[in-house]
Amino acid sequence: MQASNEKVSELSRLASIDELMHSSNVRLLRHMLNNLTPADIADQIESAPPKVRRVLWDLVDGELEGEVIGELNEELRGEILSEMESHEVASLTEGLDPDDVADILQQLPDQVIPEVLQAMTSQDRLRVERVLTYAEDTAGGLMNTDTITVRPDLTIDVVLRYLRRHEEIPEVTDCIFVVNREDTFLGTLPLTKLLTASPNITVREIMDTEVEAIAADMPDSDVALLFEKHDWVSAPVIGDDRKLLGRITIDDVVDVIMEDAAHSLLGLAGLSDEEETFASVKRTAPRRAIWLGLNLMTAILASAVINIFEATIDKVVALAILMPIVASMGGVAGSQTLTVVIRGMALGQISRNNMRWLLSKEFAVGALNGMLWALIMGAVAALWFNDPTIAVIIAAAMLINLLAAAIAGAGLPILLKACRIDPALAGSVALTTVTDVVGFLSFLGLATLFYG
Amino acid sequence: MQASNEKVSELSRLASIDELMHSSNVRLLRHMLNNLTPADIADQIESAPPKVRRVLWDLVDGELEGEVIGELNEELRGEILSEMESHEVASLTEGLDPDDVADILQQLPDQVIPEVLQAMTSQDRLRVERVLTYAEDTAGGLMNTDTITVRPDLTIDVVLRYLRRHEEIPEVTDCIFVVNREDTFLGTLPLTKLLTASPNITVREIMDTEVEAIAADMPDSDVALLFEKHDWVSAPVIGDDRKLLGRITIDDVVDVIMEDAAHSLLGLAGLSDEEETFASVKRTAPRRAIWLGLNLMTAILASAVINIFEATIDKVVALAILMPIVASMGGVAGSQTLTVVIRGMALGQISRNNMRWLLSKEFAVGALNGMLWALIMGAVAALWFNDPTIAVIIAAAMLINLLAAAIAGAGLPILLKACRIDPALAGSVALTTVTDVVGFLSFLGLATLFYG
Repeated sequence: MQASNEKVSELSRLASIDELMHSSNVRLLRHMLNNLTPADIADQIESAPPKVRRVLWDLVDGELEGEVIGELNEELRGEILSEMESHEVASLTEGLDPDDVADILQQLPDQVIPEVLQAMTSQDRLRVERVLTYAEDTAGGLMNTDTITVRPDLTIDVVLRYLRRHEEIPEVTDCIFVVNREDTFLGTLPLTKLLTASPNITVREIMDTEVEAIAADMPDSDVALLFEKHDWVSAPVIGDDRKLLGRITIDDVVDVIMEDAAHSLLGLAGLSDEEETFASVKRTAPRRAIWLGLNLMTAILASAVINIFEATIDKVVALAILMPIVASMGGVAGSQTLTVVIRGMALGQISRNNMRWLLSKEFAVGALNGMLWALIMGAVAALWFNDPTIAVIIAAAMLINLLAAAIAGAGLPILLKACRIDPALAGSVALTTVTDVVGFLSFLGLATLFYG
Repeated sequence: MQASNEKVSELSRLASIDELMHSSNVRLLRHMLNNLTPADIADQIESAPPKVRRVLWDLVDGELEGEVIGELNEELRGEILSEMESHEVASLTEGLDPDDVADILQQLPDQVIPEVLQAMTSQDRLRVERVLTYAEDTAGGLMNTDTITVRPDLTIDVVLRYLRRHEEIPEVTDCIFVVNREDTFLGTLPLTKLLTASPNITVREIMDTEVEAIAADMPDSDVALLFEKHDWVSAPVIGDDRKLLGRITIDDVVDVIMEDAAHSLLGLAGLSDEEETFASVKRTAPRRAIWLGLNLMTAILASAVINIFEATIDKVVALAILMPIVASMGGVAGSQTLTVVIRGMALGQISRNNMRWLLSKEFAVGALNGMLWALIMGAVAALWFNDPTIAVIIAAAMLINLLAAAIAGAGLPILLKACRIDPALAGSVALTTVTDVVGFLSFLGLATLFYG
């Protein structure tokens, strides 16, 4: 542990831009870099500024390149791949798992994919093509084809001797799969059972038939929820005909879990899943510009609402001072509800049955907090401007806006999902529009009634 | 798969509040509930409204209660435990992993813990006490003590016969650990190697000594990063003296990953990690009130800034109409930067070396987008109010606020972390304060210069 951490921090020191740029220590750097695990190398590359990345990538040993590129995020991987020839990509993929190769291929231009496939050995090609028939974000796209299968009528002794004939068993193998002559999935045989069972009994007697095989077209987020729920290490993937197609392993599922979590987190700030912390300015600026533009439109809409009440503000300038408070409180309360609902959706907890309860709960929370802070803000406003009317107006507007925030925060993601719009991405901009418009409309509208 | 999904949805149908409340089908419900996996039962309980939860929990079979309670979130678990006697808790924990028992115990009042420990069998007590000596959020608190160990000088054949003597091998065992006479950790022996190795060679010849053992005091988030990086299924935990203490398995690590992700997501909206979608109004409202109160204070601060410029607004009412746009754009741009930086921190990607580069990148992105939207907003304002002066003012203010947002979005989490304040929790409220204050100050300040 310590040794490796030292290695990494030593490397970070060396890899700081300044030193790299006028360093005579490139050989030392190359040596240290290639002594790290592929995941650590990818990490070093990802957290280096764009210029240094190029240098680091060029220092990676040829035989490690495939594994390192498999660990890089999609954007960086795409960048590097775009500069390679087909045969280079093909040699890079040698020895990688078919699902990782499929991920790499899916990032190449359509006309290049057949070229790379042609340059592979025929066995590799077959395995990759099987995975390529499924969408990337399904169980089929996530699976590997490196399954070890046995028939149910074999004895444990025979199975053990069969396994011993293997040069090696694939990593993350916690069970082997039991299939019949037609390759139909029958059950699993955990290695732990295999090791404790008496040698003379048959596979059928101890195999686990309770295990649910995963359908190849199941969305990968659902696969992740199943793994999490059942504490699986690996699980079989089957086709419509219940034939065994491959297996999914927990290490790939962990990646899905992390991607899904990133999606919710980044989406709420209007960032794409590919947003990486160390992307270049050239890539980052245009992406964020779109979201800012969308937000500018909703902000202008909110200003147009204020514009309606120009005359009232002109009369009572205190309104201009207080109005951002109403909008801001609505935005904060709404985003709390929105976050909770989006998280519940991601965890698969929200269904038609509990939706109504959830809405009424959020409404009740909004009402209680609305009343509390309406009273407090009313008192503050009354003291500040020495005007009881403005206190009543801001209190009423705040209550109205917190109720609207609760309804919008809980209702919008459900509505967006029903329209097949991603709530994690569209939710927050839609919510702010509601809380800004309702905030200004209620506050200035009431003010116009009282002062108009 | 299909069968189980049907079971679940059938159950959700039955579990809808209305039906449950006047249902004569309680026996059917009990039967269906207890046919689910513990994780599925916990899921059903968690996503039911508070009243129904009680009913569902009471229907769970006694022998399943321990596993179900282990799958429930902390808050619900605490609620249920608080109503149980010590001996009931003790019998509940029978057969659970020591780390899960430790989690349960840590939620009990201090005086109850020794009572529960006393009511356990002495073997269970010893195992649990070992885990209890470590903080919940460290490797030690996450580990289980169900390790299988062998000596390096044994032959594979002897190891296989030794394993066969076990009734069963613990779940999620992908390797056994090699230790010397003093229990010092020497290496791991993967089951896959054990199954393919020739029976006559010794453990020493094929054991894996490259594996990094985890120090018992390592924070659980770091453990999760290591598992994710190395695609581990299980890993050994050692003390300062390199003695083997236990092992951590991927299923528990997945829970840590999901908790950490929830922390970032919920924290940014000012929600605690324990915030659950279906918590009662009574629990939810006070928690959220605190955050709303904090936000109200910053909103009043922003209003106080506006108040300084009362005279200017009184003169040019268009300022009141446009000023929320400047603050809003700053808030959105800043939250993008903040989210990216907090995510980078959670992934361990941000260090002293790349911090300066990150700050300057975010500044550049802010400058580019600031100029773009300043120009556009300036044009909109010029046309809207037919006033070139206000166009210049809003354009300049927007550029200033987007630059401030970039600095605050990248700098605040780094600053907060250095002060040992959780950036995921305090970041967003600190950021909004900056973007609101700078937004109003720059816009109204410039306006006062031009119109004053």
